[in-house]
Amino acid sequence: MRIALTLAYDGGVFDGWQTQPSGNGVQDHLERALAAIAAGPVATVCAGRTDAGVHALRQVVHFDTEAVRPLSAWVRGVNAHLPPQVAVRGAREVDAGFHARYGARQRRYRYLIHCARVRHPLLAGRAGWTFRPLDAGRLREAAAALVGEHDFSSFRSAECQAASPVRRIEAIELAEQGPFLLLSFVGNAFLHHMIRNIVGTLLMIADGRRPVAWAAEVLAARDRRLAAPTFAPAGLYLDAVRYDPQFGLDSWDDAAESGFAALLPAFG
Amino acid sequence: MRIALTLAYDGGVFDGWQTQPSGNGVQDHLERALAAIAAGPVATVCAGRTDAGVHALRQVVHFDTEAVRPLSAWVRGVNAHLPPQVAVRGAREVDAGFHARYGARQRRYRYLIHCARVRHPLLAGRAGWTFRPLDAGRLREAAAALVGEHDFSSFRSAECQAASPVRRIEAIELAEQGPFLLLSFVGNAFLHHMIRNIVGTLLMIADGRRPVAWAAEVLAARDRRLAAPTFAPAGLYLDAVRYDPQFGLDSWDDAAESGFAALLPAFG
Repeated sequence: MRIALTLAYDGGVFDGWQTQPSGNGVQDHLERALAAIAAGPVATVCAGRTDAGVHALRQVVHFDTEAVRPLSAWVRGVNAHLPPQVAVRGAREVDAGFHARYGARQRRYRYLIHCARVRHPLLAGRAGWTFRPLDAGRLREAAAALVGEHDFSSFRSAECQAASPVRRIEAIELAEQGPFLLLSFVGNAFLHHMIRNIVGTLLMIADGRRPVAWAAEVLAARDRRLAAPTFAPAGLYLDAVRYDPQFGLDSWDDAAESGFAALLPAFG
Repeated sequence: MRIALTLAYDGGVFDGWQTQPSGNGVQDHLERALAAIAAGPVATVCAGRTDAGVHALRQVVHFDTEAVRPLSAWVRGVNAHLPPQVAVRGAREVDAGFHARYGARQRRYRYLIHCARVRHPLLAGRAGWTFRPLDAGRLREAAAALVGEHDFSSFRSAECQAASPVRRIEAIELAEQGPFLLLSFVGNAFLHHMIRNIVGTLLMIADGRRPVAWAAEVLAARDRRLAAPTFAPAGLYLDAVRYDPQFGLDSWDDAAESGFAALLPAFG
């Protein structure tokens, strides 16, 4: 049978999602824990292969197994075999047609920015920090130029393996709360480092170092050398993944327990 | 001259406040960073000597130095020499009569509890977790029995070096937000492990494993063997310290930038 899991982790202590020779990919830890419960090897597929340092609130993972276990074994049982910085938040049996990666219709990534004169050590690794005051109006205006279907070559890392640089950003939303800005990106898929490169560019506009029109100019140039440096992974969270409703796996609006609200209730 | 600092840190990566042979006490890191700025050794005194795992949002520290530096050097300059998990949040020159430890009139510690069926990996080390549903009304009622001046021998660790087990808790306040409970303890001083032992006891009442009257019974018995096990340090924060107003160092109500609000705005 095929099981789908919702997974959360602190990306700061793992070498990214993907299996690594170090054995310290999130996937390595998860597959070892699943193997302990299934009493045999388990191969996993995830919705978003996050880089080192990038967190997940509701990563979605599927795997096939012949081991018959109560769903609680795939949650609490697996968690007992995982390090404190990663945990299964929910499990569900899904149709064999479900695919965590190829079936994902929308992904929402969120970037948390801490805007303060002095860095906060309890936000180290949890939020991107800038000491420069940010103008939310400028940020919103610049972000609007990136929404839609575009060639995002200017915001793509040199290591990006995608066949096409064209992606569709459905929405970029900005929320403010005390010293925090929360930028939410919704789209089907994103290029490698695309969100961190966009965040770096938007912040150089929001803090006044570049004009608002610069976002559209960089986009139109299709040249990575023009955009801002890749922003720190510290504040980036894979927040939610949307699938066809038939799979019953929609965590999108379930903010109360497992989403960003659990960390920063004001952003629920 | 005497300088007072407000300091924040993630207690999870240090061996407590106090200087250690490992060199990994918060004090070790801070004194090394101060020495780099002062170009000579600096000895520090703090308001609350937190244990390993216990965080600080607004620890207060003083030191004497003959080095004349702008205040920004004692903040940003020192921070450049500190690991990401600790930072000076503010600095001020104070009267020679100021003493971070002996001058403290009130200390506020806060314990953050995450109440959810499944642990959250992004709260690991940041909140105490319980999967048992908690009754806030029972918790408040039990806590009220501990407020006031009492012999807290039942809640004191075997290693406690205080001359007297009598302490005065001025207030225990409970706030609720989503899956979080935030318990605030205000008093002049606390015994070693006193708050963690009280939290453990209150939670056994709040989750129904013990009757409400048990808190008063344990207190009256003056016997550490009767109270609940010491609760995890993960959720404990030294939040603020109050001094005589003449020193101009009152961080108590300055929640917007440096207090708990910076981490969980809803609790501002």
